[in-house]
Amino acid sequence: MTVKAYGAYAGDKPLESMDIVRRIAGPHDVKIDIAYCGVCHSDIHQVRAEWAGTLFPCVPGHEIVGRVSAVGEHVSGFKEGDLVGVGCMVDSCQHCADCNEGLENYCDHMVPTYNGPTADAPGHTLGGYSQQIVVHERYVLRIRHNAAQLAAVAPLLCAGITTWSPLRHWKVGPGHKVGIVGIGGLGHMGIKLANAMGAHVVAFTTSESKRDAARALGAHEAVVSRNADELAAHAASLDFILNTVAAPHDLDAFLALLKRDGSMTLVGAPASPHPSPQVFNLIMKRRSLAGSMIGGIPETQEMLDFCAEHGIVSDIEMIRADEINDAYERMLKGDVKYRFVIDSASLAD
Amino acid sequence: MTVKAYGAYAGDKPLESMDIVRRIAGPHDVKIDIAYCGVCHSDIHQVRAEWAGTLFPCVPGHEIVGRVSAVGEHVSGFKEGDLVGVGCMVDSCQHCADCNEGLENYCDHMVPTYNGPTADAPGHTLGGYSQQIVVHERYVLRIRHNAAQLAAVAPLLCAGITTWSPLRHWKVGPGHKVGIVGIGGLGHMGIKLANAMGAHVVAFTTSESKRDAARALGAHEAVVSRNADELAAHAASLDFILNTVAAPHDLDAFLALLKRDGSMTLVGAPASPHPSPQVFNLIMKRRSLAGSMIGGIPETQEMLDFCAEHGIVSDIEMIRADEINDAYERMLKGDVKYRFVIDSASLAD
Repeated sequence: MTVKAYGAYAGDKPLESMDIVRRIAGPHDVKIDIAYCGVCHSDIHQVRAEWAGTLFPCVPGHEIVGRVSAVGEHVSGFKEGDLVGVGCMVDSCQHCADCNEGLENYCDHMVPTYNGPTADAPGHTLGGYSQQIVVHERYVLRIRHNAAQLAAVAPLLCAGITTWSPLRHWKVGPGHKVGIVGIGGLGHMGIKLANAMGAHVVAFTTSESKRDAARALGAHEAVVSRNADELAAHAASLDFILNTVAAPHDLDAFLALLKRDGSMTLVGAPASPHPSPQVFNLIMKRRSLAGSMIGGIPETQEMLDFCAEHGIVSDIEMIRADEINDAYERMLKGDVKYRFVIDSASLAD
Repeated sequence: MTVKAYGAYAGDKPLESMDIVRRIAGPHDVKIDIAYCGVCHSDIHQVRAEWAGTLFPCVPGHEIVGRVSAVGEHVSGFKEGDLVGVGCMVDSCQHCADCNEGLENYCDHMVPTYNGPTADAPGHTLGGYSQQIVVHERYVLRIRHNAAQLAAVAPLLCAGITTWSPLRHWKVGPGHKVGIVGIGGLGHMGIKLANAMGAHVVAFTTSESKRDAARALGAHEAVVSRNADELAAHAASLDFILNTVAAPHDLDAFLALLKRDGSMTLVGAPASPHPSPQVFNLIMKRRSLAGSMIGGIPETQEMLDFCAEHGIVSDIEMIRADEINDAYERMLKGDVKYRFVIDSASLAD
């Protein structure tokens, strides 16, 4: 089955329209007509071969929402017409300890939605900048939002779960003071989710211009982290910090804001290392510096259901597929509030 | 009350015999005739002014054991003749959240056993390289070991609790595979304690010569960390790593040995930072890098009781007070198995 997609033939080439082949749906597969696909920073790194191992042609996209158009004979959980989503992974070993705990994201054989190994042509997975996708039912999520919200749901499949998973794992809730560092695609979801979980949310941004925006998103306080006095006012007072900034920066400035036994969890991986954090900052209050990667399938469903119940979606700017190269440039300048989403209907033009 | 002590008048001067004054025991004080005092690496850093803020004259020593010689009128927990210990702290605010939870070590007003603020002459606390010490009962520990073991109990007051506290806090026990990095004063206690807690213990050392010693201390496996193949055999298999090495080193080599959700806790603070750890190593398996500082008073008592019950003491080499300067030089070369302990009787000579 040949469908339209948008991708690149080399790391130094712009994305362009291309035809790709999707497999015939097997007994456990769900075939999805993609309605929208969010645009993640990872897409840029991978398609531009800034990370090792990009396989071409590369079709990015792992914030996929749409409607089921067909299901395999053994699929019981989905039927034609259902609103569904697909996130960062489309397969895993399905029997290791990680998979058994519903943490397929940590499975050593997790297959990313694009650039992962597959028996399908061309030998690596192709992502959501395309008209259709065929995915094993285990990796398909149900969407309970209204259909009218569908485009703004797309970023929940990566930005949403990547922030939800650590907030839940570190048990953020009422009575907690939580910091969200960086107000971008991930950070803006972190603010909304931490607020809905009942925490007191402090947003940290380098831009004075984002202070009001952070409050509008649900932050109870917004701190411009370039102002040492503003930071100092929160010293040793935060239970948890979710740090979404992928650019190298001074981690100590934020570690010093954690209470005893507080953790700062990084969800962005910089291309070059952060300045080395001071060990004293960890030792003096038994603080932790941790990392977290996306989230598992059951917790992604839990997050989507929570968001549907609380009316949470992403703030998006819709684009046509042929605007993707310009969108990348704007993202690199931080010029998006807060996520671009491709209208997949534009792929047919 | 004037007593003999051993200390330094300046950071670039050797330690020498000196007279110091101890306060008259107040209503809540315990007066202790010091029998032995362990020698910690911190002693060297502080007395040589390698850390900021050393006050002179400086009398180091925070691994203190001895017998009660007098108690204040309101002291109910101790009586003359009791075997007792004093560790790294002699006071704290006694009413903050940390103190209320028995984690006086994290109290912002914790007073170290030496070089801390005090109303006593000369205005800063003087440590255990001395004949006697007077300490508020809250910071005095009961020792249930046999009196014959007393010298070897001394290092439990710092090296013991500094390793015990994180092993307990991160819930090390049967079924866990635990790494201990560095086989020195702290590491040798970490091996003994983790073994007694029922964990499978893997010791990591840079010295081929310490491999057998690590096994003798209770390690089930001993790995020479310079051998990449030996390290790789333990990749992603450890639940917890206690890293006792204070010299800057490659943390990634050890972080990569942690399972999903594993933590590596640092108890040594290097003078210059470690090379910056790779964020990917944290993110890929939701690992944590943490720190821990000494331990609180209740858990110090718990550790001492556990050690008495399990027959655990430190491996020591006894010295006279006037051998302390040579002992420091040997410690800096790693030439001690595994802790020097000063025989306080030698102070009178």
